[in-house]
Amino acid sequence: MKTKRPLVIFIIGVSGVGKSTIGNLLSKQLSIPFFDGDDFHPKKNKTKMATGQPLNDEDRYEWLIRLNNLAKENLQYNSCIIASSALKESYRIILKKDIETNVKWILLNGSFVQVLDRINKRKNHFMPTSLLNSQFESLEVPLEALQIDITNSPKKIVTIIEDELLKKSEFGIIGLGVMGKSLSRNFASKGFVISIYNRHAKGLEENVALSFKKEFSELSNSMPFDKLQDFVNSLQQPRKIMLMVNAGETVDIVIEQLVHYLSENDTVIDGGNSHYNDTQRRVNFLKKKNIHFIGAGISGGEEGALKGPSIMPGGNEKAYKIVQPYLEVIAAKDDKGNPCCNYIGKNGSGHFIKIIHNGIEYVEMQLLAEVYQILRTIDNNPEQIANILSSWKSEVDSYLLEITIDILKKKEGEKWLIDEILDKAGNKGTGNWATITTTELGIPSTMIGSALFARYLSSFKEERIALKNNLINNIKKKSNVNIEDLLKAYQLARLINHHQGFKLIFEASKSNSWELNLSEIARIWTNGCIIRSPLMNELSETFKETDNIFFSKKMIAQIKKLRPSLNNIVSQSILNQIPIPSLSEAVNFLNGYSEANSSANLIQAQRDYFGAHTYQRINDPTGEYYHTNWKSKSYD
Amino acid sequence: MKTKRPLVIFIIGVSGVGKSTIGNLLSKQLSIPFFDGDDFHPKKNKTKMATGQPLNDEDRYEWLIRLNNLAKENLQYNSCIIASSALKESYRIILKKDIETNVKWILLNGSFVQVLDRINKRKNHFMPTSLLNSQFESLEVPLEALQIDITNSPKKIVTIIEDELLKKSEFGIIGLGVMGKSLSRNFASKGFVISIYNRHAKGLEENVALSFKKEFSELSNSMPFDKLQDFVNSLQQPRKIMLMVNAGETVDIVIEQLVHYLSENDTVIDGGNSHYNDTQRRVNFLKKKNIHFIGAGISGGEEGALKGPSIMPGGNEKAYKIVQPYLEVIAAKDDKGNPCCNYIGKNGSGHFIKIIHNGIEYVEMQLLAEVYQILRTIDNNPEQIANILSSWKSEVDSYLLEITIDILKKKEGEKWLIDEILDKAGNKGTGNWATITTTELGIPSTMIGSALFARYLSSFKEERIALKNNLINNIKKKSNVNIEDLLKAYQLARLINHHQGFKLIFEASKSNSWELNLSEIARIWTNGCIIRSPLMNELSETFKETDNIFFSKKMIAQIKKLRPSLNNIVSQSILNQIPIPSLSEAVNFLNGYSEANSSANLIQAQRDYFGAHTYQRINDPTGEYYHTNWKSKSYD
Repeated sequence: MKTKRPLVIFIIGVSGVGKSTIGNLLSKQLSIPFFDGDDFHPKKNKTKMATGQPLNDEDRYEWLIRLNNLAKENLQYNSCIIASSALKESYRIILKKDIETNVKWILLNGSFVQVLDRINKRKNHFMPTSLLNSQFESLEVPLEALQIDITNSPKKIVTIIEDELLKKSEFGIIGLGVMGKSLSRNFASKGFVISIYNRHAKGLEENVALSFKKEFSELSNSMPFDKLQDFVNSLQQPRKIMLMVNAGETVDIVIEQLVHYLSENDTVIDGGNSHYNDTQRRVNFLKKKNIHFIGAGISGGEEGALKGPSIMPGGNEKAYKIVQPYLEVIAAKDDKGNPCCNYIGKNGSGHFIKIIHNGIEYVEMQLLAEVYQILRTIDNNPEQIANILSSWKSEVDSYLLEITIDILKKKEGEKWLIDEILDKAGNKGTGNWATITTTELGIPSTMIGSALFARYLSSFKEERIALKNNLINNIKKKSNVNIEDLLKAYQLARLINHHQGFKLIFEASKSNSWELNLSEIARIWTNGCIIRSPLMNELSETFKETDNIFFSKKMIAQIKKLRPSLNNIVSQSILNQIPIPSLSEAVNFLNGYSEANSSANLIQAQRDYFGAHTYQRINDPTGEYYHTNWKSKSYD
Repeated sequence: MKTKRPLVIFIIGVSGVGKSTIGNLLSKQLSIPFFDGDDFHPKKNKTKMATGQPLNDEDRYEWLIRLNNLAKENLQYNSCIIASSALKESYRIILKKDIETNVKWILLNGSFVQVLDRINKRKNHFMPTSLLNSQFESLEVPLEALQIDITNSPKKIVTIIEDELLKKSEFGIIGLGVMGKSLSRNFASKGFVISIYNRHAKGLEENVALSFKKEFSELSNSMPFDKLQDFVNSLQQPRKIMLMVNAGETVDIVIEQLVHYLSENDTVIDGGNSHYNDTQRRVNFLKKKNIHFIGAGISGGEEGALKGPSIMPGGNEKAYKIVQPYLEVIAAKDDKGNPCCNYIGKNGSGHFIKIIHNGIEYVEMQLLAEVYQILRTIDNNPEQIANILSSWKSEVDSYLLEITIDILKKKEGEKWLIDEILDKAGNKGTGNWATITTTELGIPSTMIGSALFARYLSSFKEERIALKNNLINNIKKKSNVNIEDLLKAYQLARLINHHQGFKLIFEASKSNSWELNLSEIARIWTNGCIIRSPLMNELSETFKETDNIFFSKKMIAQIKKLRPSLNNIVSQSILNQIPIPSLSEAVNFLNGYSEANSSANLIQAQRDYFGAHTYQRINDPTGEYYHTNWKSKSYD
């Protein structure tokens, strides 16, 4: 076999386009077997056809399964070519079952007149116009197919196919930073032939792609570029290109350059942390040029990208189908072996949920930092804290808990490395966007804000040092915190954090008509991503029953059980003057969310008093608005 | 006198433009006295001039003061006309001292050749070219003057002036909603002749301006319109127009319509709650047409607008000077009698600080709501709570405290009205913007967010009721809260709220190079606005010494004294499951801001672990960034 990896090449199209001819020629050229699909009909189909009865979909099903099995068998040893009209998407779904990533579709295209003319010129062949016409009507052009015009000579057609399959790669990656490199290696290690591109910046970024290819053996089949046009031309059509460049203006710049070289029906995936409004704008921009754009959130950090990240692609669903086999193969797998990647929804919804993912992540990190801070005040060293956290794993395990344990155990000589790190937390913008999003949508996902602001506050290190001295903290920050209470408080705070994140997704989905599937989103986040944890598996089940954690009986039981501990830990920490903004927000949210009669009536009265903003009444179900002259002392 | 209110009409311009001629003619036409400024020189000036010595600024000062006194004397009885070259702004400042709002400037304009020719044609007059030249060079054209070309005949010039002063109004207001109406009445009650405009919307808004004028006697001199062009033409040039329309798109629509009728050097003021970025965009748009745009935050609600609001105008400082007399007269006065209105800074800074004002206001309201909520749990009825709050006035008085007391005392028959109000708080967007602003700027003004989110949470009333039942709150929300502690906690939380608001202004000013004056902003907020309080007066003094409340010794002493009470109240409320999000944020901010060693080191380690985001070290003052392979267990 001459193909770089085992492939099943389906030559498809209406009757008379020359599938067998091309199949035979290509077979010789590539030294791989060719099978004419028509030879594999079960006997009863053959009988039916011989008696002039048309096949129904049930007849076809058995036949398509046979072809699918044929393909699978051959794939164990070799590439192969199969000719079959495969006009409908439903037929192709059967043909490619379980072998999606090894299938290539070649669609032979001709005009009606051209094809009819050909058929009628063949010896002993005659096709009624109506029959051919119905074939043309049935044809659902597969977006992922290489389309070749039959006005080309058979030799030329075979050359085109050969060039595409042997000389070109299947998937392109632009941008070889930490994430781009890891994803490239991930794609390559799954057997995909990829093109990789990094810009040339004199003295700064030179031959990045080439050096990278040389560094890793799994990239031996990859094609490296630092010229964009060559990179694009190296890709099989329709092209599939993933951008792994810095979010923001860079994405627009790259797209601007890229569109000059792309063709209709190509697909561009933005795998960075772009803002969902930008993604929507780019979808619209490229749509005008008939180019598909998929905004895909990707989480997992460097390691996840390499071994299997969680992927959240949004945009046009048909376009997603084109790239689906690639994304699902490189994605992490959930505990049932399904890929942690699925179509999220239209527009920028993939990037939207990535922002919320990161918001939840900010809080998860902050909660661990607060737990750490509390444990430090009761005279634990980092190793002891690591041991406490290890003992919690059966209750509240998570990827972030695990890395925190690793971090706390890390020593440099005699010193704990954690103690050497400057306590000014950075951020790259997604926590910021998550906070703005919850603010704009009118949803009180308060913990995201508290975690973001905690990072902001940490950056005022010099002021903090000065104030420490000004305020001379006379409280000895040592409390007899009950470790079991702390575990429960942490557990409940995580639950509330997850509630707030998913509530935000739920409300955004409603107001944008995205129809997002909370359970499926949670499932995608059960592995590969930074916030993966057993809780996420639980939530994936919970969201099959309800859109709101707080309306699940199981969760309510947990909340009730854990609540007193959270109250204790927060109130004690406040008396001990330990900053615990996210734990506090958790308590206050819980108390506010379960308070049937809030104090917002006073706020409405104040607004009406000074601004005549009016108010509604509890005893008026019509929702009418009232205004009162509050100053008059009339008591009637 | 024929003028609608007492005016001093200064006819100004270089020698030879015909100031005396016009002054005399106008005097007859209007039946008010005319004074030629040259007749009022002190004797020593006359001597100097007779001997050919030029006057210096000191000589002029005494003379200008005389003219200013002349104007003031006349104003007690009548309008008058004074001719004086008044070429420089510094001279005019003396001339209009204490009578800014009664002064009208008429600048007679001619070309150099034209004026020289006129002078030389006069009997017994000769002026050296160099002397006239130096006058032209000295002339600083006052933006607020009506400019008339001397190619018009004297009769025509007098007619122009007469039309402007007798038939036109001085200030225009667009939009007669709650705030627009109150401001119109405020302007009119100060003696200004105003034009008022409200759009015509068939069946909805018809003859709004006319009906409004008929309703209030102080508007008898006002000119009502529902046709925009007529409204604009009714205004003296350069025109001064205030928009009191809904913030957002409406402002753009009105500006679009308005520019067709405006002339160069007219000034438009947006008195609504516009976003500062929109204001900046509008400043730039109108600048291209040589029209000034002032974004003025106005606070005080309906009553403040009527009796004297706090006004925060930003934009071009020179343009501000044009409208200054009007805005300062209608503004509230501080305890020294100075207007609660001053030029804030360039660009959108006026509207920016209004947003922060409202952010502080959200928190002040929320803190009162939390205090109310806590007091309700210890079996106080609204009247009893009102009495407690009344007893606090000597310590923590504020406008919002006062209206809260009024509200809590309000009864409907036997029922307290507060108990009838639905507890779903509304918001009009500024709290939202304030939260987004603090998020975008990277400043942890956490309390604004907490107050906004508390309103958001209140809107989920149905879920709150359901959860109340699901979670069956088994804590009896009755605590033995110490009222003295609660007062102190409230006091400290207010201090922190004000710190956070001003910190946000300080940081925004730095990053936008606005050079805002915190002390002056606090002073403007000491009266007229919704967040006025004795604390604001204190802060106005504090900010003369430091940009940060936490670096004032006096404030630090207070904070230390109050801190244990805030700790107690928050921790107790949390044990009692009373939602107190803003009080909690106050505590957590204080604890975080005075924590020299935060837990952000753990967050930096986590970020480096999963994303290779690097970290800095406490013992490396160069600020270098480090990356660690956290998984390796190497202990060296």
